[in-house]
Amino acid sequence: MCRWMGWLGQSVLIDELLFKTQHGIVDQSLHSRMGAETTNGDGFGIGWYGAGAGPGVYHSVAPAWGDANLRELAAHIESPLFLAHVRAAIGSPVQQTNCHPFRRGNWLFVHNGFINGFHLLRRDLMLAIAPEQFADVEGSTDTEVVFHLALTLGLESDPIAALERTIGLIEATAAEHDVPAAVQGTFGVSDGNSLWAVRYATEGPARSLFASADVDTVKRLHPENPRLQRLSEGDRLIVSEPFADLPGVWHEVPEATAVCARRGGELEQRPFVPQAQPRITVTRHQPSATLNT
Amino acid sequence: MCRWMGWLGQSVLIDELLFKTQHGIVDQSLHSRMGAETTNGDGFGIGWYGAGAGPGVYHSVAPAWGDANLRELAAHIESPLFLAHVRAAIGSPVQQTNCHPFRRGNWLFVHNGFINGFHLLRRDLMLAIAPEQFADVEGSTDTEVVFHLALTLGLESDPIAALERTIGLIEATAAEHDVPAAVQGTFGVSDGNSLWAVRYATEGPARSLFASADVDTVKRLHPENPRLQRLSEGDRLIVSEPFADLPGVWHEVPEATAVCARRGGELEQRPFVPQAQPRITVTRHQPSATLNT
Amino acid sequence: MCRWMGWLGQSVLIDELLFKTQHGIVDQSLHSRMGAETTNGDGFGIGWYGAGAGPGVYHSVAPAWGDANLRELAAHIESPLFLAHVRAAIGSPVQQTNCHPFRRGNWLFVHNGFINGFHLLRRDLMLAIAPEQFADVEGSTDTEVVFHLALTLGLESDPIAALERTIGLIEATAAEHDVPAAVQGTFGVSDGNSLWAVRYATEGPARSLFASADVDTVKRLHPENPRLQRLSEGDRLIVSEPFADLPGVWHEVPEATAVCARRGGELEQRPFVPQAQPRITVTRHQPSATLNT
Amino acid sequence: MCRWMGWLGQSVLIDELLFKTQHGIVDQSLHSRMGAETTNGDGFGIGWYGAGAGPGVYHSVAPAWGDANLRELAAHIESPLFLAHVRAAIGSPVQQTNCHPFRRGNWLFVHNGFINGFHLLRRDLMLAIAPEQFADVEGSTDTEVVFHLALTLGLESDPIAALERTIGLIEATAAEHDVPAAVQGTFGVSDGNSLWAVRYATEGPARSLFASADVDTVKRLHPENPRLQRLSEGDRLIVSEPFADLPGVWHEVPEATAVCARRGGELEQRPFVPQAQPRITVTRHQPSATLNT
Repeated sequence: MCRWMGWLGQSVLIDELLFKTQHGIVDQSLHSRMGAETTNGDGFGIGWYGAGAGPGVYHSVAPAWGDANLRELAAHIESPLFLAHVRAAIGSPVQQTNCHPFRRGNWLFVHNGFINGFHLLRRDLMLAIAPEQFADVEGSTDTEVVFHLALTLGLESDPIAALERTIGLIEATAAEHDVPAAVQGTFGVSDGNSLWAVRYATEGPARSLFASADVDTVKRLHPENPRLQRLSEGDRLIVSEPFADLPGVWHEVPEATAVCARRGGELEQRPFVPQAQPRITVTRHQPSATLNT
Repeated sequence: MCRWMGWLGQSVLIDELLFKTQHGIVDQSLHSRMGAETTNGDGFGIGWYGAGAGPGVYHSVAPAWGDANLRELAAHIESPLFLAHVRAAIGSPVQQTNCHPFRRGNWLFVHNGFINGFHLLRRDLMLAIAPEQFADVEGSTDTEVVFHLALTLGLESDPIAALERTIGLIEATAAEHDVPAAVQGTFGVSDGNSLWAVRYATEGPARSLFASADVDTVKRLHPENPRLQRLSEGDRLIVSEPFADLPGVWHEVPEATAVCARRGGELEQRPFVPQAQPRITVTRHQPSATLNT
Repeated sequence: MCRWMGWLGQSVLIDELLFKTQHGIVDQSLHSRMGAETTNGDGFGIGWYGAGAGPGVYHSVAPAWGDANLRELAAHIESPLFLAHVRAAIGSPVQQTNCHPFRRGNWLFVHNGFINGFHLLRRDLMLAIAPEQFADVEGSTDTEVVFHLALTLGLESDPIAALERTIGLIEATAAEHDVPAAVQGTFGVSDGNSLWAVRYATEGPARSLFASADVDTVKRLHPENPRLQRLSEGDRLIVSEPFADLPGVWHEVPEATAVCARRGGELEQRPFVPQAQPRITVTRHQPSATLNT
Repeated sequence: MCRWMGWLGQSVLIDELLFKTQHGIVDQSLHSRMGAETTNGDGFGIGWYGAGAGPGVYHSVAPAWGDANLRELAAHIESPLFLAHVRAAIGSPVQQTNCHPFRRGNWLFVHNGFINGFHLLRRDLMLAIAPEQFADVEGSTDTEVVFHLALTLGLESDPIAALERTIGLIEATAAEHDVPAAVQGTFGVSDGNSLWAVRYATEGPARSLFASADVDTVKRLHPENPRLQRLSEGDRLIVSEPFADLPGVWHEVPEATAVCARRGGELEQRPFVPQAQPRITVTRHQPSATLNT
């Protein structure tokens, strides 16, 4: 059910974090320890801020562990802020338009988890996207729909509040269709300056999510580790599962919590509480064509 | 803007018609003479009836001219009824879920052409699909939406009448959005027993479409051609453009016309006249989420 | 390190064995229990005898578990003799030309295992291929080279004897380069009439290999199982690991053993003993270009 | 038969030259005007110097005109020196290991053209590669073999001299096999500091090759063109065919000529004269395995 990671900090070659770690996300594509699936081989993607306007994205249907292009790109692209995601597909096809991160303008979006009963809910949820944005949905994943709903509900002004409204809307829609446990997972969002993440499940334990500790703490705990000594103040990793067995370096993000890493700052944390949304039409009568009898 | 072909007749290895013709559809993927584009290299697909339940489909994003698997499959699959399609993509991504033929149950569907302004019309058209079928739309092409609208409007009972209603609905929707020249192209449909095709354009000339002449005529005109002498009564090809320069073998299907080839029978032909569809809601007010101010 | 299977018997839809088994090869691509790797997601291939001349092959770089085309083809191709293989790549790229089965004329060839130190041995081994066949090696796997050496050494007359000479040559070449444990694995071969398999390792335990028991035995042991009751005399499966927990149905092939299944007959078994090959040149001086100093 | 381009100069986003030109290489993948083929849709590749150690490479089997990832990468990677290539395959499969540029260490290599009769010559030519490099040949193209021969013959010291020796060796080998017109095409080479190109054909006209004029001249001729006014001294393009109809901007490289662009300098030009190579063995007796009679 996917794994993802986000980096915000000094500019680094992407492969420093994708490949040169003990158990980084590419290793997790083959040997995840904490995910719902051991294997996340149904495609991957990276989104990075750096050269050029807005974030660049690279998506592939190949398993991350074997993709030669990923190794190349990671070794030759530097970025101070990037997201990477490896996918375990549930129900929707493996294709580039179904890979994360999704992007709109300066915003990137990743997700580990699922919307329960999405096949039943897809029509109602897509109808709730701002009409002029409907045709911008390119793929068939639940995540892309969540992203466009969040954009409709104000992501670009306040990502966490928008996601609270989005999850609220999804839970209400699921209830109408008698679908339980509607939302599961973790979400990652960035605008190129900050990096937000949410951990939430309608019912039961949510997918794992960790943030790296403040750099002062990390350096103090591991003076013998040269790579960690190169960290700068404000450098932050947010990850589905830790990259290495380094005591004190990783803090688990609690359930129903949102975090925000800002450039050079501390990690902010607050509760994540879905907000129920009033629906504009109450009737279940949908406009659709029928056969004239 | 794509090329397609359909065969109904004796069981043949698919490569007899895909590769062993002077200018068959694979050659047309690289050197189309009549299509809107010379090159149709944005993926391809085949759908065939034969072994197994219902039609099998094979889709690939590779250009047809270079795909080793296509050569293999064509040389080792026999079928008495199949459709093949090579794609020139306009606006939607090259991915397997955007390749034709589309399939539902026993039905296959191909299209050469486009729905004008589809980006503007996509939401309204998808809303007009039977709600319980909405989530079965896997890709992002106009053709797949046309197919699902036709299924909603009775394709499985009467394909041509359903397409007349479908085109009527699309033209009405386009008019609401001030989109001219809404529908362009040719459509191919089969249920495993018959093969239907339509040639139609809202405005101006429609994409080319040809049907092979009755086998008696073909054999009589070309006694020196051993391949043509092997044809059986009722064998029929319907194609975007002719496979070979063989005088008298190809009849152009007129504009605004539907044809039907039935096993062992003659080619039926009738006018194709879109039927305007009453819309269930007249208001343009859509149910969608908005940001609480 | 790969898994494979071969079927010889009544004509069946390929998916009967690829998908409609408890733990068939597609399941093994994600959850192998006996292989060196749990995951075999670096491409797959099928080779089948049936319609058309000689065997057809289909290769894909996609993981078998997620490939929509594989499901389609398996459900619509019938064959009385086919091989399927899922790959875990070691050292050579994931590409269609590196997928098994390899084919030449009527012959198919699969392998689970590896040639140790292949990077060091590749030149000498490729030189030992009949010169007129050298340029027919399309990919970069050890398996394809083993296949072409076996063809050079008489595979088409006597596959097992040819493989004994081939393994002997490889072991001798490895010894010259101080490479230990040269050969590891199981091999599958067919000409469309018979199905041969070999289990062998230069050192230590060889990769697993099983053959199904005689149909009489299988039916007698499992009278309650309708699928097994449909088996015909002579039906035979040869597999890397068993498809289901069915006591008495699977016999492990011993180390250093070759088996042969012939249409309608019993499973023949004999020891597999590599034959050292005299080398035509004893000098290690190879013709190569050098820079004029 | 391919098209390629090289840029050496100020650091630019790759898409400035790949996409934001009137008739750049991506347009040439679909509508080449000067190439042997109109369509060059059998994969593409880019190799660039910039961030990270040595050149990065990105290869894809998708046609360049439709690859979403290429647009992304080009828009977000800056480089002062890069090569791009679009492929029309002749005889060898479309796969990433057969895409140009080829790379070894800091060196990149591209080719438009072919080695005639390569299937006959492949064994002898691969034998002439330094034995310890033999197994580094990953693909099956003639170009990759030319590259490794040139590396064997001193490319890293003097690329043009090495290519003269390489072409000489190839022509001699071809003569032994009675293959005429052995070598055809243009070659591009870089080490990250300089950019070399060769235009040569054993017989008849060679593939087209152009170099941009000195920046002073370009600016003087086109004062109204803002993009051209942004050029810096020493900026240089070397291309299979010109990107735009700009009089005076492009100089055709003559037949049998090598050029070299050095950072900030003028374009050097000299004749290209293949040097026959003495062969180390004169016998045609090859070491190969044979069947014991």
